[in-house]
Amino acid sequence: MSKVKIGIVGYGNLGKGVEAAIKQNNDMELVGIFTRRPPDTIKHKTPGAKALMINDAVNYKNEIDVMILCGGSATDLPEQTPQFAEMFNTVDSYDNHSKIPEFFDSVDKVASKSGKVSIISIGWDPGLFSINRMIAGAVLPEGVDYTFWGKGVSQGHSDAIRRIEGVQNAIQYTVPIEEALEKVRNGSNPTLSTREKHLRVCFVVAKEGANKDAITKAITTMPGYFADYDTEVNFISEEELKANHSKMPHGGFVIRSGKTGQASKQLIEFSLKLDSNPEFTASVLIAYARACVRLSKEGASGAKTVFDIPLSYLSPKSGADLRKKLL
Amino acid sequence: MSKVKIGIVGYGNLGKGVEAAIKQNNDMELVGIFTRRPPDTIKHKTPGAKALMINDAVNYKNEIDVMILCGGSATDLPEQTPQFAEMFNTVDSYDNHSKIPEFFDSVDKVASKSGKVSIISIGWDPGLFSINRMIAGAVLPEGVDYTFWGKGVSQGHSDAIRRIEGVQNAIQYTVPIEEALEKVRNGSNPTLSTREKHLRVCFVVAKEGANKDAITKAITTMPGYFADYDTEVNFISEEELKANHSKMPHGGFVIRSGKTGQASKQLIEFSLKLDSNPEFTASVLIAYARACVRLSKEGASGAKTVFDIPLSYLSPKSGADLRKKLL
Repeated sequence: MSKVKIGIVGYGNLGKGVEAAIKQNNDMELVGIFTRRPPDTIKHKTPGAKALMINDAVNYKNEIDVMILCGGSATDLPEQTPQFAEMFNTVDSYDNHSKIPEFFDSVDKVASKSGKVSIISIGWDPGLFSINRMIAGAVLPEGVDYTFWGKGVSQGHSDAIRRIEGVQNAIQYTVPIEEALEKVRNGSNPTLSTREKHLRVCFVVAKEGANKDAITKAITTMPGYFADYDTEVNFISEEELKANHSKMPHGGFVIRSGKTGQASKQLIEFSLKLDSNPEFTASVLIAYARACVRLSKEGASGAKTVFDIPLSYLSPKSGADLRKKLL
Repeated sequence: MSKVKIGIVGYGNLGKGVEAAIKQNNDMELVGIFTRRPPDTIKHKTPGAKALMINDAVNYKNEIDVMILCGGSATDLPEQTPQFAEMFNTVDSYDNHSKIPEFFDSVDKVASKSGKVSIISIGWDPGLFSINRMIAGAVLPEGVDYTFWGKGVSQGHSDAIRRIEGVQNAIQYTVPIEEALEKVRNGSNPTLSTREKHLRVCFVVAKEGANKDAITKAITTMPGYFADYDTEVNFISEEELKANHSKMPHGGFVIRSGKTGQASKQLIEFSLKLDSNPEFTASVLIAYARACVRLSKEGASGAKTVFDIPLSYLSPKSGADLRKKLL
């Protein structure tokens, strides 16, 4: 069987994760990396793969089965996914939850017309968490959903701290509060405030001579980001930050606590503990890239999400093999 | 929209669970319960639903959209599923893992010919656990799977104890060993012996004058069931057994511990904590009954498993609604 030929658009942490994930799947091969940077500055690790200008993609329509779009959700993907869906099957990790419906519609319009398959919003949230929310809700119609995130780095919150005067560098961890998790697991269906669910832990490098009290106050009172949480601020050196906080761990919990029959409590829990958020997201993208190509070969077209795709399409194993070994 | 019309075959704990689950889903209605017992002995709880002899089912071909088969996997389902698949869309909970491939083939042959959809092996293991094993394996190709069961009642082990001389009644709980779970969660990919994964806890009612030491020895040395485990035997009275051990809790854990990139550890965990095993299994059956009817309306036929079905088919919500609220 010929391998799934993959293109990567964008070579940041996620794109690098996709490249690494391809190496773990021997039914896949990386054809090219498309970038806005000068291609010769791309130091990739796949012999035979090309580094190319993003505008060159159009010349690779017949050489790539699926393009994995590794740009950001704020500005890259809303432009890139519809643009690439005109020419390629695509998979992306669009994660702006509130705008997913309009993003889906804009991609679906293009992909339906071009006859390509575009699987959107793949990763773990949205993605595997969405799958678990959906199944749990269908199985336990009477119940309450809880999602906790962390322990993990929030880029948005880290960036917000970095914008404060006197801050040289910063990283912020979102930490689920164990006591709240336990209440949920006990089936008591608690109503939890924002403050009761997550703690925010910040590691801040202050500029020389900066007022640390002022920085702390600016962080802990920042509306939208920190004001509604208990926030811990730790000042450390740039060296410490680099040595101890350069990884991108993340994870979280999706729990549905429901009831069946007279009063039987039923609890469904899904959780992730990830050393590397981008590498894991990339691994999910790759599994859905496989599904994307299969759907396309079957003649499907248009935008798809995790809800639309039979799970067997994610696996290189045959139906008979899956039934024998995993059912 | 007209409701999904459901028939139940077999009115034991699982059949009663299905009846209760139908009440939680207002797009469904129970038409009839088909039983081998005299129908007038069936005291069901659904006004308007009929209790009927199993042989009468043939007369309800046009009144039932999907038949939920609630018999056992040892002898009932291998006969009943192919038999009913000639006339009805079906959903069953066939759970004899090693025989699933041949069961699938025998059902597929009939359902493909009759033009019906038969979804087999639905519940939580096989079922939701299978889904999670499959997704986790596709996302993390380099990794190790672990499945733990419990804390929950094993009917097979309880029955085995009841067959020992001098035993009046008994119940056996399978208990996952927390220390083993923690080792797995820490990503150390341990090799775990049978004894290290699960503990067996037995509550036994001895007949008057029975030799308790002999019973304990017979249990703890029983090959295939207890000899490979650490087993705890507690003697209690029949009243205590009825008062404290008449529920059917169960649950378990599916964990995949994998690696991406250079050495990033990634952990995916799915777990269930169930007050009532049959009610929960029934709730999963009902969600797949909805999918079964949708597939049938689309013209599908043949045997299907959890791997073949897009997840959105489990939910009464529209695609747009799912994307907006759960993605």
